[in-house]
Amino acid sequence: MTEPTAAPQTFRAIDVIRKKRDGLELTSHEIQSFINAYTRGDIPDYQVSAWLMTVVLRGMTRPETAALTDAMLRSGEVLDLSSITAKKVDKHSTGGVGDKTSLVLAPLAAAAGIAVPMISGRGLGHTGGTLDKLEAIPGFNVNLPVADFRRVLDLCGCCMIGQTDEIAPADRKLYALRDVTGTVESPYLICASIMSKKLAEGIDALVLDVKTGSGAFMKTESDAAFLAELMVETGERMGKKVVALITDMDQPLGNMIGNALEVVEVVEILRGNGPEDLRELCLELAGWMLHLGDAAVNVEEGRNKSASLISSGKALERFLQMVELQGGDPRSIDDTKLLPQARHSMQVPSPRSGRIASLQCEQIGTACVILGGGRERKEDSVDPAVGITLHKKVGDAVAAGEPFATIHYNDEARAARAKQLIEVSTTITDTAPAKRPLIHRIIGQPKPSHSGEKN
Amino acid sequence: MTEPTAAPQTFRAIDVIRKKRDGLELTSHEIQSFINAYTRGDIPDYQVSAWLMTVVLRGMTRPETAALTDAMLRSGEVLDLSSITAKKVDKHSTGGVGDKTSLVLAPLAAAAGIAVPMISGRGLGHTGGTLDKLEAIPGFNVNLPVADFRRVLDLCGCCMIGQTDEIAPADRKLYALRDVTGTVESPYLICASIMSKKLAEGIDALVLDVKTGSGAFMKTESDAAFLAELMVETGERMGKKVVALITDMDQPLGNMIGNALEVVEVVEILRGNGPEDLRELCLELAGWMLHLGDAAVNVEEGRNKSASLISSGKALERFLQMVELQGGDPRSIDDTKLLPQARHSMQVPSPRSGRIASLQCEQIGTACVILGGGRERKEDSVDPAVGITLHKKVGDAVAAGEPFATIHYNDEARAARAKQLIEVSTTITDTAPAKRPLIHRIIGQPKPSHSGEKN
Repeated sequence: MTEPTAAPQTFRAIDVIRKKRDGLELTSHEIQSFINAYTRGDIPDYQVSAWLMTVVLRGMTRPETAALTDAMLRSGEVLDLSSITAKKVDKHSTGGVGDKTSLVLAPLAAAAGIAVPMISGRGLGHTGGTLDKLEAIPGFNVNLPVADFRRVLDLCGCCMIGQTDEIAPADRKLYALRDVTGTVESPYLICASIMSKKLAEGIDALVLDVKTGSGAFMKTESDAAFLAELMVETGERMGKKVVALITDMDQPLGNMIGNALEVVEVVEILRGNGPEDLRELCLELAGWMLHLGDAAVNVEEGRNKSASLISSGKALERFLQMVELQGGDPRSIDDTKLLPQARHSMQVPSPRSGRIASLQCEQIGTACVILGGGRERKEDSVDPAVGITLHKKVGDAVAAGEPFATIHYNDEARAARAKQLIEVSTTITDTAPAKRPLIHRIIGQPKPSHSGEKN
Repeated sequence: MTEPTAAPQTFRAIDVIRKKRDGLELTSHEIQSFINAYTRGDIPDYQVSAWLMTVVLRGMTRPETAALTDAMLRSGEVLDLSSITAKKVDKHSTGGVGDKTSLVLAPLAAAAGIAVPMISGRGLGHTGGTLDKLEAIPGFNVNLPVADFRRVLDLCGCCMIGQTDEIAPADRKLYALRDVTGTVESPYLICASIMSKKLAEGIDALVLDVKTGSGAFMKTESDAAFLAELMVETGERMGKKVVALITDMDQPLGNMIGNALEVVEVVEILRGNGPEDLRELCLELAGWMLHLGDAAVNVEEGRNKSASLISSGKALERFLQMVELQGGDPRSIDDTKLLPQARHSMQVPSPRSGRIASLQCEQIGTACVILGGGRERKEDSVDPAVGITLHKKVGDAVAAGEPFATIHYNDEARAARAKQLIEVSTTITDTAPAKRPLIHRIIGQPKPSHSGEKN
């Protein structure tokens, strides 16, 4: 077919929209042109949102997903950390309730000789955010310029900041648009968003913690595995070592939910104490970080080294160093009573005796948001002091009238609403439910070898 | 499930987008709120374009389509033509090449005592537009205010104007957005766009001419029938008599393509001459208009009456009256040489002898656009004089070297490109192809009864 009226071959956003709408595969060049033009402001939001919806409803091939990730990654600065000789490894979680592993893992891996350049996000919806937790530490500054980020990383092996304007600006623009156009829920867009930011950190390897269960964005294991495979393949196409652990988020992780409370629990873990599930997940993720960062021949060795770095106090020492370098008050870590404290607390007693059958995780996260500990909209501020302590987890026995949770609050009315929600979110039955595994599946790397054969 | 964080029930655009994205049926209230808010400017384009894409890819149920049509119709003024006692019947075509039937039908049906309040569009892409054709008549004004529209309609039974700001403003806003977001091609959105404007004319009945073939937007008969059924059902839900004829647009209609040239052919038909296919389609459509407007007991009688109104000169007389009332020069109708004339013409000779097997209709329409007779973008102006005369139609015998088309042009380079395109658009074979019917199917009303039993 001749196309005689066509102008000389130039990029047209409408052609890219139509092509994807009709289920055809876009070329890397088309995706790159589209993302670049949008970042420059040459394509209006209304064309991009239509295109995003075609991606949500039509999906993307693996090469398209990689091209999108690459285009978003290249929309801004890619950190050059080549002056840091250590292997650079990061960890990313898809978000959950009570998930404070990042605060443990960054200093822990750094203590093992790995560099952890971690750029994190804030909480949104029912999930918490690493930046909000860090900011519960008085004085802690998550808004370092890139030069300071590099300096802290160089000095203590880890640094934790928020997204900068320089890194993946396309993602910031796209995410804001997705948020208001019903185009958040696409594994392809989620993958490109996460991977573009993480790969812009200039890392060698990445450990992904993809959550599944009632408190996760991916409710089913198969959805979580689909996203995990997409991210692992995309990272590998870009020459990075990537592994994804599908981990359980059907109940909150650990016992503490709320920003300052979660810092307390982080310190507990770094002191060799803390709840078993949180400690176990931290060791497994750290094991993988050390292994991918060539600080351990296999995951088992990585776990053992990590456990030693905790018991020796070296991981906690590194955490204190990072806190201090980022302007935080180290006394509040030594004595966590100096962290923000809620003025009041209230018990949630069990209505009957039995076993905790479920703790509906999204609702418990929402209860913390209601208390003021999270944000419903991006522009909301958070109260670092409020939150929830769970005295019982799924499977535990509870007596009638025994408190299974404590609410830490600053506002009576909010506390009453949160209590009600915690009550309806908790199911108590006569017998303990079948135990869900903490780690459901590992995707993207051979299973850890315990024989130490690898080199 | 309790939803404790939800604000008091208010309309949120994002919920409507998500619901449709997930394949659920929207309520009339949701659709109406969405369209009303957009018309008022309370929803940004980027949310509406995402929603439009969900409609393109998810489709709509019949009640949703009717609700959308109704919301768009009610976004502006619905003409009150109750002071006009005659039955008000309009005809609408989905667009094609050489389709000038509206200019014949409005005065013809008016001569039979029907009121035809016709609000038409301009050509876009390869298709021609009624307004562009009317404006080829020197002085003809298609931009009458509603009061003048009503007055002309009252005086001569028909009036032909362009869309006004008052009628279906939601459609104008939506159409402009669809045009640039790849969301034109949806039968549901096409139906709502057409039907909302037509029903806002305050008509009693509507005859739809849904084109199918290489020059139509709906290339296949099944796509055309799907759209036709959608429009008929939507019109009937709103209490209107509606019929749809699926008619052939696999080659241009009639022999003339180009604005002034098509007016010449209209005058030919109104004088009782003109090409057979155009005359036949005009009589069939007029037959239905008269039948639905209670001016004929059945289509057959409607056809016969129409043929008489042509042979008696009454239809042409009505056309002249309308032209004069709308500011046009009636002398240019009496003597069509006074219509705009191209400065040059050029023959397109047949490369071989044989039969015309096909005239690729979209490309021939595009050839007319290249000459300047149509517009690629809304803001383009058109040259009323240029166009194409086809001396041969599909099935006709042609000798080697015999001209099968004449190009009327004002620009040498454009003419050369148009000629090339006409040549590649024409297939000549040894034997005549199977004849395609002019009228493929009739949807929405019982087949015409020839016994005259109806009353």
